[in-house]
Amino acid sequence: MRAVTFQAPGEIRIEEKPDPEVVAVDDAVVRVEASGICGSDLHIFHGRVPVEPGFTIGHEFVGTVLAAGPSVERVSAGDRVLGCFHTACATCATCLRSEYHRCENGRTFGHGANLGDLQGAQAEQLLVPHANLTLRRVPEGMSDEVALFAGDVMGTGYHAVEHAGMRAGDTIAVLGLGPVGLCAVQASLAGGAAKVFAIDSVEQRLEMARQFGATPVHLTEEDPKRAVRTATEGRGVDIVVDAVGDPAPLAMAISLARDAGTVSGIGAYAGRGEVPMGLAWLKGLTLRLGLANVIAHVDRVLGLLEAGKLDPAPLVTHHMALDEVADAYTLYDQREALKIVLTP
Amino acid sequence: MRAVTFQAPGEIRIEEKPDPEVVAVDDAVVRVEASGICGSDLHIFHGRVPVEPGFTIGHEFVGTVLAAGPSVERVSAGDRVLGCFHTACATCATCLRSEYHRCENGRTFGHGANLGDLQGAQAEQLLVPHANLTLRRVPEGMSDEVALFAGDVMGTGYHAVEHAGMRAGDTIAVLGLGPVGLCAVQASLAGGAAKVFAIDSVEQRLEMARQFGATPVHLTEEDPKRAVRTATEGRGVDIVVDAVGDPAPLAMAISLARDAGTVSGIGAYAGRGEVPMGLAWLKGLTLRLGLANVIAHVDRVLGLLEAGKLDPAPLVTHHMALDEVADAYTLYDQREALKIVLTP
Amino acid sequence: MRAVTFQAPGEIRIEEKPDPEVVAVDDAVVRVEASGICGSDLHIFHGRVPVEPGFTIGHEFVGTVLAAGPSVERVSAGDRVLGCFHTACATCATCLRSEYHRCENGRTFGHGANLGDLQGAQAEQLLVPHANLTLRRVPEGMSDEVALFAGDVMGTGYHAVEHAGMRAGDTIAVLGLGPVGLCAVQASLAGGAAKVFAIDSVEQRLEMARQFGATPVHLTEEDPKRAVRTATEGRGVDIVVDAVGDPAPLAMAISLARDAGTVSGIGAYAGRGEVPMGLAWLKGLTLRLGLANVIAHVDRVLGLLEAGKLDPAPLVTHHMALDEVADAYTLYDQREALKIVLTP
Amino acid sequence: MRAVTFQAPGEIRIEEKPDPEVVAVDDAVVRVEASGICGSDLHIFHGRVPVEPGFTIGHEFVGTVLAAGPSVERVSAGDRVLGCFHTACATCATCLRSEYHRCENGRTFGHGANLGDLQGAQAEQLLVPHANLTLRRVPEGMSDEVALFAGDVMGTGYHAVEHAGMRAGDTIAVLGLGPVGLCAVQASLAGGAAKVFAIDSVEQRLEMARQFGATPVHLTEEDPKRAVRTATEGRGVDIVVDAVGDPAPLAMAISLARDAGTVSGIGAYAGRGEVPMGLAWLKGLTLRLGLANVIAHVDRVLGLLEAGKLDPAPLVTHHMALDEVADAYTLYDQREALKIVLTP
Repeated sequence: MRAVTFQAPGEIRIEEKPDPEVVAVDDAVVRVEASGICGSDLHIFHGRVPVEPGFTIGHEFVGTVLAAGPSVERVSAGDRVLGCFHTACATCATCLRSEYHRCENGRTFGHGANLGDLQGAQAEQLLVPHANLTLRRVPEGMSDEVALFAGDVMGTGYHAVEHAGMRAGDTIAVLGLGPVGLCAVQASLAGGAAKVFAIDSVEQRLEMARQFGATPVHLTEEDPKRAVRTATEGRGVDIVVDAVGDPAPLAMAISLARDAGTVSGIGAYAGRGEVPMGLAWLKGLTLRLGLANVIAHVDRVLGLLEAGKLDPAPLVTHHMALDEVADAYTLYDQREALKIVLTP
Repeated sequence: MRAVTFQAPGEIRIEEKPDPEVVAVDDAVVRVEASGICGSDLHIFHGRVPVEPGFTIGHEFVGTVLAAGPSVERVSAGDRVLGCFHTACATCATCLRSEYHRCENGRTFGHGANLGDLQGAQAEQLLVPHANLTLRRVPEGMSDEVALFAGDVMGTGYHAVEHAGMRAGDTIAVLGLGPVGLCAVQASLAGGAAKVFAIDSVEQRLEMARQFGATPVHLTEEDPKRAVRTATEGRGVDIVVDAVGDPAPLAMAISLARDAGTVSGIGAYAGRGEVPMGLAWLKGLTLRLGLANVIAHVDRVLGLLEAGKLDPAPLVTHHMALDEVADAYTLYDQREALKIVLTP
Repeated sequence: MRAVTFQAPGEIRIEEKPDPEVVAVDDAVVRVEASGICGSDLHIFHGRVPVEPGFTIGHEFVGTVLAAGPSVERVSAGDRVLGCFHTACATCATCLRSEYHRCENGRTFGHGANLGDLQGAQAEQLLVPHANLTLRRVPEGMSDEVALFAGDVMGTGYHAVEHAGMRAGDTIAVLGLGPVGLCAVQASLAGGAAKVFAIDSVEQRLEMARQFGATPVHLTEEDPKRAVRTATEGRGVDIVVDAVGDPAPLAMAISLARDAGTVSGIGAYAGRGEVPMGLAWLKGLTLRLGLANVIAHVDRVLGLLEAGKLDPAPLVTHHMALDEVADAYTLYDQREALKIVLTP
Repeated sequence: MRAVTFQAPGEIRIEEKPDPEVVAVDDAVVRVEASGICGSDLHIFHGRVPVEPGFTIGHEFVGTVLAAGPSVERVSAGDRVLGCFHTACATCATCLRSEYHRCENGRTFGHGANLGDLQGAQAEQLLVPHANLTLRRVPEGMSDEVALFAGDVMGTGYHAVEHAGMRAGDTIAVLGLGPVGLCAVQASLAGGAAKVFAIDSVEQRLEMARQFGATPVHLTEEDPKRAVRTATEGRGVDIVVDAVGDPAPLAMAISLARDAGTVSGIGAYAGRGEVPMGLAWLKGLTLRLGLANVIAHVDRVLGLLEAGKLDPAPLVTHHMALDEVADAYTLYDQREALKIVLTP
């Protein structure tokens, strides 16, 4: 089969690899019919996240089950399925608390030996361990490009507000309107946010957030803190989603939250620099940080997608063939695409 | 001023009473511009809830502040306000846990000496104790008839799902489509329910629920349990709202909930009879019972009303003058109205 | 191997059976070194819970792993282990919410075909499916008779207060001082209850609760409601554990709880009769019903047993040989024993 | 009356001031019989927290009610009472969520105009606004020096673990064994921690923690991270209480927490410097920061003190007369005392 492999920083290449096979009793093999390129793939592309040369990358996928081990009960050969971006063992101490995203034996698709040595989804076929936990049937009538979001980007947007303890009627600000931020905007609105402030500096992303129902706030041409304060009687919002992740956005997030509010830091925190912890302490904030627990959320997210209350279709700006993957990465790296869907 | 008073079972009468005056430092006097007739008023009307003859009834209101004591900070004279159906002291042991609905010193408007000896809102003027806790400014542009719901019926519908721990993507069944049940349907949908089953035997109420976005299920012409099971892979729903309250509805609620699900019993449980507690135990259910904690919810409910995510306007079937109140009660008693709004 | 089998109501018998063998990749076979007789075994003994003749009964055990499938990682052959009273699949919809006690594929040891067709633990050897979820190593220095409680009776006592949302400083009443009730007393005190009222009519059980640190209240010679009210400024307790389960105890539990408090119904609710739901509704109570989620709790319970903060040793009134099992059931049925531990 | 006043950095002085009088309907005047010197008083003493010259300082007190306004119901003239370190309005948006520590109208005793212009408790008499919220009767038989802790230091220790969502059986590390850290150690053990690691570099504080039941870990002579990892199968603890508050302790707290664990930052975060947010993000931590919500906890804390499950008496190292206050501050500043109690 053909597979997209990392070779060196800036260099990816399609290679021919043997078809994967079911080994463990709860393995499944999926014929991939659509895969996505994600912001975290760019970290690999640039060498910031180290991956072995020749490793297949990609972690968002929709496809059809080709084969499944005897313990796989949730799906069967022939089923059209979507997957989560990682697997979990379901029985370690963290899984027992439903914190699957920190599974002690967790493995992330397409992230090299460091994250579990699990070949990626930008390929014609994919081996999926612990399929009962990771795979779900695609509800009838749902397109590949919508289903693709359930186990990664939309699951992350959902997590950003759910994990922050959102309640219907809350006010929310989302900082950074990439795919995850835009999905957090949708999840906020679907969950009953009374007001959602969507903050970025790219006009078309602000416009998309506006169409979803949020109040767009330009990061530099407006004063986000003033805008949020004015609309909340001077208090700030109940929840701020930081979908970027560096010191400056986190500092802004802390400034936008109301006293005793919550900052949900979903963007990978890669940068260095000082964070205004003194202000966070004075305001009595709660900071909830880290990757999303998509396995715990995927069934509810699918229910919302099926009901049309979440709809990531507008985020898909490009469909490209697997063979065009090098161009796709270049395009994505230039920030000219929100979400690129690859089809074999 | 004129006031609607209970006289005897089946007999209410408008009487002339002295205007109320501010006594305590946190009292306010409100000129009532709209008041509602509620299901619990019928219990008084029929003598099931005992109230002293001559007592002013009613507990839903919108109006303008005429005067306020020196400690009242949340509203000022001249403000257009709405109220909650009861007051609370804010400092007793239950209030300290934000359980204002069970305040040890709580008083309910228009329910006689037993519930705090607080004259009612179906009158031209109303004395409101603890106004900081009970009153809110009506957001600009909101009609009286919408604002009227925030502190009682819609607050109760919101409570029904919030108190049950609803999360976006949950499945919900609402049993009984009177005003509270219909508001619970709206609150479920606003909070991101993936599916809402609305169950009743009155066609027009089912139709209204359908227009709100729920799946209507006829109580007797369909089989609610089968309908719910079929749509939930045989599991039952995450949350059942029992907006009726007697043994039979509670039994049905228990049968509709999924294993380890929640039944939210918001309807006043007045009847006698056996409840299938054995089944509730086998299923590992949680039952959350009692009146709604509207004071804790009113700001979020107002935010949702202002955003248009909740909209009780379709529930208002009749506007009548205060002087027509006797006819209004007769009409309401015949179940020919969903919500009657009285104006002086 | 020898195994204790149900034959007919009132008749159990030791039979010779083939040794169990590892079949699935996550199976383990345990050589049982101690097993317990539990209140629910009496339901089988009397035929109230139907079990096939010849089925091996028992569901509490400590022993040594003889063999384990290749996917078993938590324990290894030779490890001294304890087990939970049931297994779970870890991947169904309820397990994904950590509600293992309602697993859609759950199987209970020694309860016949109805509850998963899983042979019981009152035997020389035991097959344990899903061993990663169900087994734990016995901490060094812990006796068999203490470890035996972790996965069943003490896990249930812990659940009773944990599931009710207990916080340090709460007041608690426990109704029924059988082994589960006494464990709930210990769990309440370990978790920081400020006051625990232990209610029963058997003097020696009241005395044991007193020694644990609770305030004993005689069910009939004292007035439990008055005793609880007097000690709580008239309010009632934050949490009532009903460790009995029939209408009368549930009614008392409802009367003892404070407004907006919680009743934790851990006792199997087998009886019929009217429950005062109207009072529960007026008080705004939460009722949490059903079996304990011991798999979710077992690691914390083990930590507390190891620290000596929970200590069920005083509850073990009898040690008997497996061959004396018929006498043991007769003794237990006459309520002359709190906990009988069988050794092969 | 005599009152301890701030004059200039390093200079405090006793001044004669007029006796306070009841002004508002819910004011009380308390004759102070014991007051404490707290770590935050040192910030004032050194001028780091600016207070007007002549302002009375101190915020921990026990005494007798001399007079009370007509709305004060919780206590009466003649009652022996203790107080919380701040007051709250009970009706603003944050109070409505029981987040009294962030009350929009909150006032802290003895912290100058910036924090509400409320004269302090190191005086012979004290005016207490909102007495229903702030005062509690001292339970019979409780000493002044124990009661003194309920509304400040012990309330803070309790908050540190309660706010972090502690459950019985959790593992906890407390960083910094000043009075707040030692109280957090006690609160952890009272709430059922299976293991508590108490970390500091002062031998006598480590010894005191050991006597309370914790495992002492020397900050520099041992390797706290290794000690915690070894005792938790390499995982880290469920909750880390940072009772210090600067970048270095917070960094250590982040390193000690298990994946998806919680850091409870109760120590005032005054310093500047980089915090390892990237590690906190990778581990998926929750950080809960800020002052303690002592008003919400005071009744449960009192219950635990009364039951003897919390006992701060060993922390009181010095009793001094109000007239010796200058010496007391010098002594405290030299870190030669854990807690000094002043009596008039």
